[in-house]
Amino acid sequence: MSLSSTTGAAPDLVRREAQDWLDSFADALSKRHASAVVALFDPDECFWRDLIAFTWNITTLDGRPAIGAMLDATLARVQPHQWTIDEEAAAPDERNGILTIWLRFETALGRGRAIARLRNGRCWTLLTTMYELKGFEERSRHRRIMGAEHGAQRGRETWLEKRDRRQAAWGDTEQPYCLIVGGGQGGIALAARLRRLDVPTLVIDKQPRPGDTWRNRYKSLCLHDPVWYDHLPYLPFPDDWPIFMPKDKLADWLESYVKIMDLDYWGASPCRKARYDDAKGEWEVEVERDGGIVILRPKQLVFALGTSGYPIVPQIEGAETFAGEQMHSSKFPGGENCKGKRVVVIGANNSAHDICADLWEYEVDVTMVQRSSTLVVRSETMVDMVWGPIYSETALDAGMTTDKADLLSASMPYRLTPRLGVAQWQAIAERDKDYYARLEAAGFMLDFGEDGSGLSAKYIRRGSGYYIDVGACDLVANGEIKLKSKAGIARIDRDAVVLSNGEALPADVIVYATGFGSMNTWLADLISPEVADRIGKCWGVGSDTARDPGPWEGELRNMWKPTQQPGLWIHGGNLSQSRSYSQYLALQLKARMEKLETPVWNLQPVHHLR
Amino acid sequence: MSLSSTTGAAPDLVRREAQDWLDSFADALSKRHASAVVALFDPDECFWRDLIAFTWNITTLDGRPAIGAMLDATLARVQPHQWTIDEEAAAPDERNGILTIWLRFETALGRGRAIARLRNGRCWTLLTTMYELKGFEERSRHRRIMGAEHGAQRGRETWLEKRDRRQAAWGDTEQPYCLIVGGGQGGIALAARLRRLDVPTLVIDKQPRPGDTWRNRYKSLCLHDPVWYDHLPYLPFPDDWPIFMPKDKLADWLESYVKIMDLDYWGASPCRKARYDDAKGEWEVEVERDGGIVILRPKQLVFALGTSGYPIVPQIEGAETFAGEQMHSSKFPGGENCKGKRVVVIGANNSAHDICADLWEYEVDVTMVQRSSTLVVRSETMVDMVWGPIYSETALDAGMTTDKADLLSASMPYRLTPRLGVAQWQAIAERDKDYYARLEAAGFMLDFGEDGSGLSAKYIRRGSGYYIDVGACDLVANGEIKLKSKAGIARIDRDAVVLSNGEALPADVIVYATGFGSMNTWLADLISPEVADRIGKCWGVGSDTARDPGPWEGELRNMWKPTQQPGLWIHGGNLSQSRSYSQYLALQLKARMEKLETPVWNLQPVHHLR
Repeated sequence: MSLSSTTGAAPDLVRREAQDWLDSFADALSKRHASAVVALFDPDECFWRDLIAFTWNITTLDGRPAIGAMLDATLARVQPHQWTIDEEAAAPDERNGILTIWLRFETALGRGRAIARLRNGRCWTLLTTMYELKGFEERSRHRRIMGAEHGAQRGRETWLEKRDRRQAAWGDTEQPYCLIVGGGQGGIALAARLRRLDVPTLVIDKQPRPGDTWRNRYKSLCLHDPVWYDHLPYLPFPDDWPIFMPKDKLADWLESYVKIMDLDYWGASPCRKARYDDAKGEWEVEVERDGGIVILRPKQLVFALGTSGYPIVPQIEGAETFAGEQMHSSKFPGGENCKGKRVVVIGANNSAHDICADLWEYEVDVTMVQRSSTLVVRSETMVDMVWGPIYSETALDAGMTTDKADLLSASMPYRLTPRLGVAQWQAIAERDKDYYARLEAAGFMLDFGEDGSGLSAKYIRRGSGYYIDVGACDLVANGEIKLKSKAGIARIDRDAVVLSNGEALPADVIVYATGFGSMNTWLADLISPEVADRIGKCWGVGSDTARDPGPWEGELRNMWKPTQQPGLWIHGGNLSQSRSYSQYLALQLKARMEKLETPVWNLQPVHHLR
Repeated sequence: MSLSSTTGAAPDLVRREAQDWLDSFADALSKRHASAVVALFDPDECFWRDLIAFTWNITTLDGRPAIGAMLDATLARVQPHQWTIDEEAAAPDERNGILTIWLRFETALGRGRAIARLRNGRCWTLLTTMYELKGFEERSRHRRIMGAEHGAQRGRETWLEKRDRRQAAWGDTEQPYCLIVGGGQGGIALAARLRRLDVPTLVIDKQPRPGDTWRNRYKSLCLHDPVWYDHLPYLPFPDDWPIFMPKDKLADWLESYVKIMDLDYWGASPCRKARYDDAKGEWEVEVERDGGIVILRPKQLVFALGTSGYPIVPQIEGAETFAGEQMHSSKFPGGENCKGKRVVVIGANNSAHDICADLWEYEVDVTMVQRSSTLVVRSETMVDMVWGPIYSETALDAGMTTDKADLLSASMPYRLTPRLGVAQWQAIAERDKDYYARLEAAGFMLDFGEDGSGLSAKYIRRGSGYYIDVGACDLVANGEIKLKSKAGIARIDRDAVVLSNGEALPADVIVYATGFGSMNTWLADLISPEVADRIGKCWGVGSDTARDPGPWEGELRNMWKPTQQPGLWIHGGNLSQSRSYSQYLALQLKARMEKLETPVWNLQPVHHLR
């Protein structure tokens, strides 16, 4: 099954079939006849994924009963109408028995886009999204402001004066409606959207300049995703930007982006403590700034601290006796600082590979300790087979846009990700079989996920456990990076890492490329353990695989959507998710600021604390 | 006559007529049969404007003999071929008896775009442009670089290290091929294009930060052109950018743009002296930097110092006796510094109006002295009637792009600008007749150019003599800005400006909004008076109107094209021209760096020194 839009069946027939289904669907909705709507869905398997349009939530309804219950609860308020086929996005298209239809619609409050997939005349998957609130449209294109206020006015304030006054007022005479803790790509993308929606927003970050988190990483780091996947909202990277962006180039871009988007951004301003005042319905946040403490009182508090929580360093017997340096991968200072030393890197995922290759480039004696199997894939293969169909120049030439690609990505419910993945990754295994054979021959433990479903599934389950190969695998295969696998770590001695098979690896430096905890670990410190527990585990979908325990939840836990703590939101993910989901988070915040009715359907329960 | 592309005649007939003409044209060119080509042009009136594709010059050939002579001289070398109708840009379109055809073609060295207009089956106007050199294509879109160098390499240099090394090397171990003096929008736009063409380029500016020239102007300044007209190359302003951009917002954009485009830019580095070494074919340029002098030795030297030369301050009897402050408009510090004073502004063009309005906003007693008539037009009218048809959201909705609009603008030879202007400005006079009547009643002297041809013609002739009204005219009409017109200035006393009718205007401050000289006045100081004279006057087309003496030259003098001084180039104009013509200048420089054959046809003679 492919996401591509090459047409199979004759367009006119396809168009009529699409229109017939849509007519019935729109009619049943307009009559608020939930059971008639439900009857238009595939009885054997069907999903309705909603991004805030019906449910004010990010949620996937799995099966007819769940869909019916949602409609019963929401139809009277949502009043969906004006359903039309969005031929401008793509004509209805049938391939392999699946008819894909791009749609537009309206609700009482907003305007939406949708993608439906039909099988045998009934809906198999439906995505509904809201992209703008009526009456609160972004002031772009035909709605631009004038800029110059024509006509003479005494006492007018210039753009610069307004900006300076606004930025100086936070925490003093003004309070932001929304405070974003974390000024990486996630916080910045969200702030840009909130700015366009006139939601008073301040971003704070502990580092001085936007992009510093990237600047401070080891110098050879480049993005592992290609440029087409990584755009921020509103201002795409220029069309000569490298496919795999060097980290300092991205860092500088983020800094320019903050200026261009006119965001209010406090660098060197770590968040020290936050407390929710239930009575006032607002936060009290202590921020360190210029040597003092500023108290901010936002109504909404967003944590945008990446995809993960604190670094995880395993407790290993004897680690405290080690005479050399030990550090988590996030503190790795770059291979140039390890010259002449023996380095053991514990872990075999993205960071471990990048760090081992970086060390090798400085002729450092480096050993990688692989404790469990890893999904490895050649970068070229990812570009060709995984991203390429919708995020590439070729896709753009065929009429794809970043917005459309994001919608298409969102349109496939997470339940189906593994099923679609298995076939794709079998093809990848076949394409690169010599490559995988070489790695296995070197003793490297490979997997494509517990169920062979590949990288996307693994990413949504645990956000780790893989390496997109930009060169290190060759060094592993030919022994330039020494590999120790199929053995655990028994203990650490004064000068060595000792494996469970008794082998001692002499070491001057140990790098723990052992990953990160759940995002809510930040909250335990910054707010309280109680609030961290009330929120529960972040990320993962309940797949009942490693690091992602069941039950099935169907959406990334706590991400970009209402949590069990009023006024608290989690924003994160890679650049693509930051771009795409910031839109839905921004609209949720705007709707609350404007005091629109936003009842949440299916607020997620908490099954796991970390 | 309209530049719009609404179709009149039936598309198939039109398409056939276009194709028939093109077949004959391409055939005659391929046979290098100049007289057969010429026979396809209108014998009564025809123009061929070439932007470097045939002539390595920016030149307009006026009439059949001039076209024939050009072809005789260039055809064998240029080898134009592969002529096709560019339906992707626009289908052939006939309106009011004019058939417009968008074309693509190739030459021996490059790829080009063209626009032909036919009347009665023969060519009336033809624009040919080169947009890329074969083998030296920009590395954008499908030609992007990888960024990450996949595979492990010892001793690799990161993007950041390369950039820092490159920027530190100029004037020390490396010399730029091209040095651009002036880091405003013109110099920056050109540098961005040269960067994509891998032409080693350094920009120097006397101000510390890119955009400072804008920052230092009076604070209420906004652009008078709308945003769609003002984009820089490669990175359009975001789609929520204000229609009329505040000057500080543009300044910050320019600063970000320099970073994003990875330009080598030295701020706080004034050019002190430049000398051409004929023997070596390179310049020796003294640049002040960090308290010392750096010698740069570029092969090509570009002056990008705006649209004009030094400020002109008229010699007025008694000026030296004035007790208050006197300044040129370019040094006006803003109305807030003139509170409680009486200010006389001499002049009645853009700067004079902006400054008077700014003073009025601070409740300053202000008098405008109008010495000669001014073209005034409401900003709204310009947006609707002049820019709107091709530079607006509505135009974008109709399939226009900035590139296409630029090509369309370039396609009308300057000879025809006044003829097209007269009808347009008659319509403007009619639309806003009450507005103009009010201004005349207040004593304001109006014109639409000596021949009524309007703003575009006036702009290309002299770059001055107009005001796009963003609010000041109302203050003039109702007397809030006091107006003195229809009288010259007799002298300046200790405390007053005395008019030729004897009236004395008491003054504490005099602002000379009296314009600027020709760009080559910079050259007299920075290089030598001889070189300034060798180059001659810049700007203007030889219209034989005020400040633009004849004979007719047909193109803006010295702008973006070869001058009489080898290795010396002038870049300038408004944002739109900087964007559009930087492409042709960049390709001329690249071709020279690559030592391609670039014989210049029709190198302009010098008729005027200043």
